[in-house]
Amino acid sequence: MSRPVVFLTDFGTDDFYAGVMRAVVAAGAPASRIVDLTHGIRPHDIDETSFVLARAFDYTAPDAIIVVVVDPGVGSGRRGVVIEADGRTLVGPDNGFASDLAAAGKIGPFVVIDEDAVSRAAGRAVRGATFHGRDVFAPVAAAIATGASATDFGAETGGVVMLRDVPSVSVDAGRVSGTGRHIDHFGNVLTDIPRGVLEHVFPGLACRVSVDGRNIGPLRRTYSDVPAGELVAILDSWDLVEAAVHGGRAIDRFGGATPRSIRFQLASA
Amino acid sequence: MSRPVVFLTDFGTDDFYAGVMRAVVAAGAPASRIVDLTHGIRPHDIDETSFVLARAFDYTAPDAIIVVVVDPGVGSGRRGVVIEADGRTLVGPDNGFASDLAAAGKIGPFVVIDEDAVSRAAGRAVRGATFHGRDVFAPVAAAIATGASATDFGAETGGVVMLRDVPSVSVDAGRVSGTGRHIDHFGNVLTDIPRGVLEHVFPGLACRVSVDGRNIGPLRRTYSDVPAGELVAILDSWDLVEAAVHGGRAIDRFGGATPRSIRFQLASA
Amino acid sequence: MSRPVVFLTDFGTDDFYAGVMRAVVAAGAPASRIVDLTHGIRPHDIDETSFVLARAFDYTAPDAIIVVVVDPGVGSGRRGVVIEADGRTLVGPDNGFASDLAAAGKIGPFVVIDEDAVSRAAGRAVRGATFHGRDVFAPVAAAIATGASATDFGAETGGVVMLRDVPSVSVDAGRVSGTGRHIDHFGNVLTDIPRGVLEHVFPGLACRVSVDGRNIGPLRRTYSDVPAGELVAILDSWDLVEAAVHGGRAIDRFGGATPRSIRFQLASA
Repeated sequence: MSRPVVFLTDFGTDDFYAGVMRAVVAAGAPASRIVDLTHGIRPHDIDETSFVLARAFDYTAPDAIIVVVVDPGVGSGRRGVVIEADGRTLVGPDNGFASDLAAAGKIGPFVVIDEDAVSRAAGRAVRGATFHGRDVFAPVAAAIATGASATDFGAETGGVVMLRDVPSVSVDAGRVSGTGRHIDHFGNVLTDIPRGVLEHVFPGLACRVSVDGRNIGPLRRTYSDVPAGELVAILDSWDLVEAAVHGGRAIDRFGGATPRSIRFQLASA
Repeated sequence: MSRPVVFLTDFGTDDFYAGVMRAVVAAGAPASRIVDLTHGIRPHDIDETSFVLARAFDYTAPDAIIVVVVDPGVGSGRRGVVIEADGRTLVGPDNGFASDLAAAGKIGPFVVIDEDAVSRAAGRAVRGATFHGRDVFAPVAAAIATGASATDFGAETGGVVMLRDVPSVSVDAGRVSGTGRHIDHFGNVLTDIPRGVLEHVFPGLACRVSVDGRNIGPLRRTYSDVPAGELVAILDSWDLVEAAVHGGRAIDRFGGATPRSIRFQLASA
Repeated sequence: MSRPVVFLTDFGTDDFYAGVMRAVVAAGAPASRIVDLTHGIRPHDIDETSFVLARAFDYTAPDAIIVVVVDPGVGSGRRGVVIEADGRTLVGPDNGFASDLAAAGKIGPFVVIDEDAVSRAAGRAVRGATFHGRDVFAPVAAAIATGASATDFGAETGGVVMLRDVPSVSVDAGRVSGTGRHIDHFGNVLTDIPRGVLEHVFPGLACRVSVDGRNIGPLRRTYSDVPAGELVAILDSWDLVEAAVHGGRAIDRFGGATPRSIRFQLASA
């Protein structure tokens, strides 16, 4: 049985780069299912990539190969890696995309991709390639999906790149702080502040939330706990703090900043 | 043989929510084909959802399971339903998404989803979940795709929610009225006014069309029956009235309104 | 074994037309893989379609059926064609979409689609259809994917439509000229000017590049060969000239023009 291949990239769906990667996997692993997690990561945003990967990870098939290509450093000599992670296999540039998974204790041994090994498998040189998603990561994923081993493409090593400040959460003097990590399609601001930390610091979750210094009231259960058009903070479907507007777009209340620039603070109610 | 699963949502493809639903079905029904009908419904627009579902329905596989998640009421206690429909099975919130299909006589018995039954099947509690697409509708669809019965997840009942004014068409004093229902990717305004009604009221289809009070001439056969840049009304590929601009975008001539706010009137030529 | 079906259209993914085509193929060829190359071609842009198809072609499965629907002439009597191309089969309107492939010597005999033959196969009339992607091209692709022959749907003939100025490249007095052909998701301007021509005209690739009359310096190896924010010309991952901005969007420096309106000139360094 051929393993499924999942894509997470910043290539967009308005362009043909994601399609070429799909085609490469379809040609190399004809019996593998291909799943688009999303190609809509903000261009070059590794922090968002790491967050989205960690959110989606538990819902992928337990034997999925996840190809993660958000790669601002392509052409600069950064390494490619294959990472074992709780039964799944991650393939992509070594730029920190697995940081949230690592913080959750989910990544295992990893292999640095040797482009000469990829070239031998492909029957043509890939050294100097500038579209590694097409020429390195998708072919490696297709090969592993159909039975190859990660170590066919390089040697196990240590020292994967990690992002700083992942997760963003800190606790100080009875207050919990964190930042936005993703703006969703509905304009909600998602954070990585988990219910578990809040339950520990605020018995009964009795806390109030401020976003960028603006008090938006107590943590609520659902959007409709406030009147339409008002800001609200809830625990989302991943049990993480989220800022939303009932029937509206929260991000429009906080300017066009990056998710990371939006600061959350929670204090006792 | 595992049944195919078709998605119709407002989650967008720029985000990862649709991808997580795909992953859940891929994990739960490894042999089922997944088809994205679209994730591009205007956020929370149930009226458009109902129209698009009815347009696409006849082209889906005769045993398709169609997961429809446009769900502004999530968290408010609205019911989830599984509806038998001409061989297909519809799964989603009970908010009127099947109204156009119902008006066409295509929906049959339905089951109200019992979240406790879903929890038992999943091996974890889904009550209180806020991402029903991921935690309820996709798992139920995957289970039915691989052989479960709708009644494994609840009891048959009556009284599915219906939208008012679906379809939008009325006939009065020899005039036919209706509204827009969808703006397509090319800027065309699609209605639910069918050829059959026009043939009955206007022998030989001899009628003229006005949109928002503006006369755009007789019903034509194809876009190129008017000069480039001009408005034209035709019967589209579903034999429904459509307003278009030859080589342009009709919606740009009618402001940024919702499809429903654009009124069509047809009278004898 | 059912052949895979690849889609290349301008239908967008925000709308349901691409989804209906997927559904038609899923219903007609249940065992065929469906691959979305992209649905993001600029509406009605056949020139871009031809370029993108040629770029992606070599990466599709060697037995792929590629359905190309960018069809401004639908309803005007233009022909539908099935083209054999290096093992793959192309299906779409006869409007020039295969011009770059033809220039590369990759297209073979072709068949003009007879709508009566499609109607007989479908069991209903398709003559007069206005959504040929749904009613003609997808059903023909599904039939061929599951064993039908192109000649089941028409007769072989000659004289496929070709675009003028494809590829755009010319050499005159030691200078190489060409145009943009595609703006990618990252704002890069892609051309069809190949390394091979440059190597012939400029020994050692020693040349400087101007775009719309503006000198952007020597041809470089990679984006990071210039400071962040600066324009740079490189050979891209298809070994074609591309204009980019290191860490930015090149197209924002050249106005909102079409790719074709952006002129490239290369001269000795």
